[in-house]
Amino acid sequence: MAKSQGERRLPKRIYETRVPALREALIQLQVRLQSAPFSVLLVVAGDDAAGKGEVVNILNGWLDPRGVETFAFHDLTDEERERPLMWRYWRSLPPRGRMAIYAGGWHTEALAEEPRNRRELARFDETLRHLEHFEGLLSADGALIVKVWLRLSQEEQGARLRDLEDDPDTAWRVSADDWKHHRDYDRRARLAERMRQATHLPGAPWHVIDAADIRSRNVAVADLLLSRFQAHLRSHGRQTAIARPRRVVPLRPSGLRRLQALPLDQHLSETAYEAKRDKWLGRLNRAVRDAGQQGRSIVWVFEGWDAAGKGGAIRRLTSAIDARDYRVIPIAKPTDEEKSHHYLWRFWRHVPRAGRVTIYDRSWYGRVLVERLEGFCREDEWRRAYGELNDFEAQLTGHGIIVLKFWLHLSKEEQLRRFRHREETTYKRHKINAEDWRNRRQWDAYEIAVGDMLALTHRPDAPWHLVPADNKRFARLEILKVSCERIAEALGD
Amino acid sequence: MAKSQGERRLPKRIYETRVPALREALIQLQVRLQSAPFSVLLVVAGDDAAGKGEVVNILNGWLDPRGVETFAFHDLTDEERERPLMWRYWRSLPPRGRMAIYAGGWHTEALAEEPRNRRELARFDETLRHLEHFEGLLSADGALIVKVWLRLSQEEQGARLRDLEDDPDTAWRVSADDWKHHRDYDRRARLAERMRQATHLPGAPWHVIDAADIRSRNVAVADLLLSRFQAHLRSHGRQTAIARPRRVVPLRPSGLRRLQALPLDQHLSETAYEAKRDKWLGRLNRAVRDAGQQGRSIVWVFEGWDAAGKGGAIRRLTSAIDARDYRVIPIAKPTDEEKSHHYLWRFWRHVPRAGRVTIYDRSWYGRVLVERLEGFCREDEWRRAYGELNDFEAQLTGHGIIVLKFWLHLSKEEQLRRFRHREETTYKRHKINAEDWRNRRQWDAYEIAVGDMLALTHRPDAPWHLVPADNKRFARLEILKVSCERIAEALGD
Repeated sequence: MAKSQGERRLPKRIYETRVPALREALIQLQVRLQSAPFSVLLVVAGDDAAGKGEVVNILNGWLDPRGVETFAFHDLTDEERERPLMWRYWRSLPPRGRMAIYAGGWHTEALAEEPRNRRELARFDETLRHLEHFEGLLSADGALIVKVWLRLSQEEQGARLRDLEDDPDTAWRVSADDWKHHRDYDRRARLAERMRQATHLPGAPWHVIDAADIRSRNVAVADLLLSRFQAHLRSHGRQTAIARPRRVVPLRPSGLRRLQALPLDQHLSETAYEAKRDKWLGRLNRAVRDAGQQGRSIVWVFEGWDAAGKGGAIRRLTSAIDARDYRVIPIAKPTDEEKSHHYLWRFWRHVPRAGRVTIYDRSWYGRVLVERLEGFCREDEWRRAYGELNDFEAQLTGHGIIVLKFWLHLSKEEQLRRFRHREETTYKRHKINAEDWRNRRQWDAYEIAVGDMLALTHRPDAPWHLVPADNKRFARLEILKVSCERIAEALGD
Repeated sequence: MAKSQGERRLPKRIYETRVPALREALIQLQVRLQSAPFSVLLVVAGDDAAGKGEVVNILNGWLDPRGVETFAFHDLTDEERERPLMWRYWRSLPPRGRMAIYAGGWHTEALAEEPRNRRELARFDETLRHLEHFEGLLSADGALIVKVWLRLSQEEQGARLRDLEDDPDTAWRVSADDWKHHRDYDRRARLAERMRQATHLPGAPWHVIDAADIRSRNVAVADLLLSRFQAHLRSHGRQTAIARPRRVVPLRPSGLRRLQALPLDQHLSETAYEAKRDKWLGRLNRAVRDAGQQGRSIVWVFEGWDAAGKGGAIRRLTSAIDARDYRVIPIAKPTDEEKSHHYLWRFWRHVPRAGRVTIYDRSWYGRVLVERLEGFCREDEWRRAYGELNDFEAQLTGHGIIVLKFWLHLSKEEQLRRFRHREETTYKRHKINAEDWRNRRQWDAYEIAVGDMLALTHRPDAPWHLVPADNKRFARLEILKVSCERIAEALGD
């Protein structure tokens, strides 16, 4: 699968004549990257002692350090440990127009799991799937991902370690572990091969580079980066205009049917509501505290029609939670930092710490709702998104986070009544604008998109709860109940 | 100094008629805040058991939780521990148009120092100065800071603790520490008083509110927030247009004299340079590694004329440092998230972790250079900035971070030569634009601003190093040498 490059020895004389041109080309790359609509991720991984750090330093010397950032991942900080594995990598991602170099990448950390039995191997494969998915996601978003594996034979590795030990300046770099790894070369090489196969994607292939000769190794990495960049610039250099879809056709009509079958004629008197509300608020308070004590975080996702009562429902909910433990993240227009990253980046940012709560008022589902319908992303992008959103949530639930998703459903007539009421009420007028009316005219299209979302992102770990919301009291109570039950279930009560 | 409010008992009936109006007014506040050019910080601190958490929760219930975030600061995370004290507070700050509620504020953490002797008291006072400075800075930037101290007498505190213990639902909230604190009431009250006096600023005064009666306490806090907000909206509701200064007059001519006295006619041959360069690069490599091993971070600040060679100097420097340990932060136009915060926020963001290096390519000194001269901030703002910048750096150095500041100085003739060379060289053309020429026409004004900066922000812990940069080789070597010496000195070698 991965081809080996640069096996011959490169004489110093030739190297020294080639380097100035490489440097010049790398600087040009950086200048052109600044206005390119994508980011560049260079991963330099490889066998022990193959010179990952050296290569990274040499590249940094050739590049303008002002346009590139280098990362190496070691021990998790406690803020990282409290989030899903990939959080630390998400937060390191460069915005479009910038480059990041990853010494060892996320792959070296994965290999450090050192699986030794079948169970550990299964976990290792699971980690690899996360990496594959991560890279697939970024590359589908246009990122240029260049992954280098510096290969060193066992014999060369031994020689390199001895050389390092012999030089008093570098002897400190060789540890007992290095020699242990050296003796364990074959097993480690097989694991690395397994890792490379699992993460060898069309958009993020591995390039195995022979690291026996230092000079040809350096040149090979730079050459590779340059040629991949040139090719990428040709294929991804321009953003294509996106047209608004002319017709919206359901992908999975079952979702739409489920939505339309939802009865909306619930009744609940004020007094009946108040009596029950306090009971459920009390239970929710205990449930959230129990979760917090167990270090389990909770993520609430609220989606629904305009004026469906998301705000009110969130207020009831938060009234039962200690204000020091939750954050409400209203999802509106992205900031320019958010816009210059993958669309999921702005949601990863707010993933709660252990035992805390994040409430998203609208969410990542905007990708398959407003972005799909208004033409804010391409068709292949929103079609791909269902899988991406499922995977994102699977990472949350896989880390023990409890994910609660609510769609607040409204009849078209009730929405009209609420819009009019908002317009007529002084202190509610700020809650309604032309966009709400515009969205309303697209009701049928939105209904189709909602149906697809319900059908395609309903998973056992993170199911959709459809809430009839024509009656606000009923809706609020329903949300409290379902939340309590799901949290209790997740805690195994 | 601080007046006590709401001492009478508020009957339940009156409370219940007042609350709806308060809630309505708070929501209106939030709507108006959205378009206001300032942020709101509400600190709810107070005596033990006075109900800080309760008040925060009640306010959150009255407010729309989508526009407000609540913070409580407990144990430092390791990422926080590795930075100066105030870093964690800086990263919690809301952008303009948003509100944050601080349960306990930074003040409760400060009081947890529990100073017991003269030395500890001196340290405590030092912490208080940081808090005072922090609040002064934010309030000068327009933030509305409302600080509430909930007061409870020792007797009332005892009664409250017993009430809590008697109720099985709340008994867990009372710990042995609470009773210990209760017996130690007087000493703790004196410390709190000392804290309030030290942080009682015109823009961020303390409001002591009697917390004996729960209902009048709640109403008093909400009333206070509303009235302070109204007043603030009147005085800070609109951004005033800023005119570009017509004449630039030195504040401290000594700085300008120092700048103009710098000899720029250094000579250094290519071969002499190369011989020395490698020696100093080697030393720098060791110095940075030594600092890293001791957990000491390094912050480099590069300022200088356009085309003075900052980029090249940074590349030489970074060539001696492991790429995994440094970040170069080029300071250009702020992002919109950065723009919606205090101007120092974007620099605080990048303060390095323990043992790491951040290199700022241009820096916070933009405030007293380009922002002063182009009218990007008001005169009172840039005048105040000298003190703010000194204090920011004092916080860095106080935390053990080594701060190295370089001004790369150029003659006007040499700059012209370099501009022309850039325009004539294909691959350098991107480095020069109309703005560079515009800045050049303002040379004299910039020289005055630079002089003031040198004179007013030169401190023993973070001195300015003036580097003659007409000769690039000389400049680069000088930077290497000075950096090595300063790091060695800081490490006590």
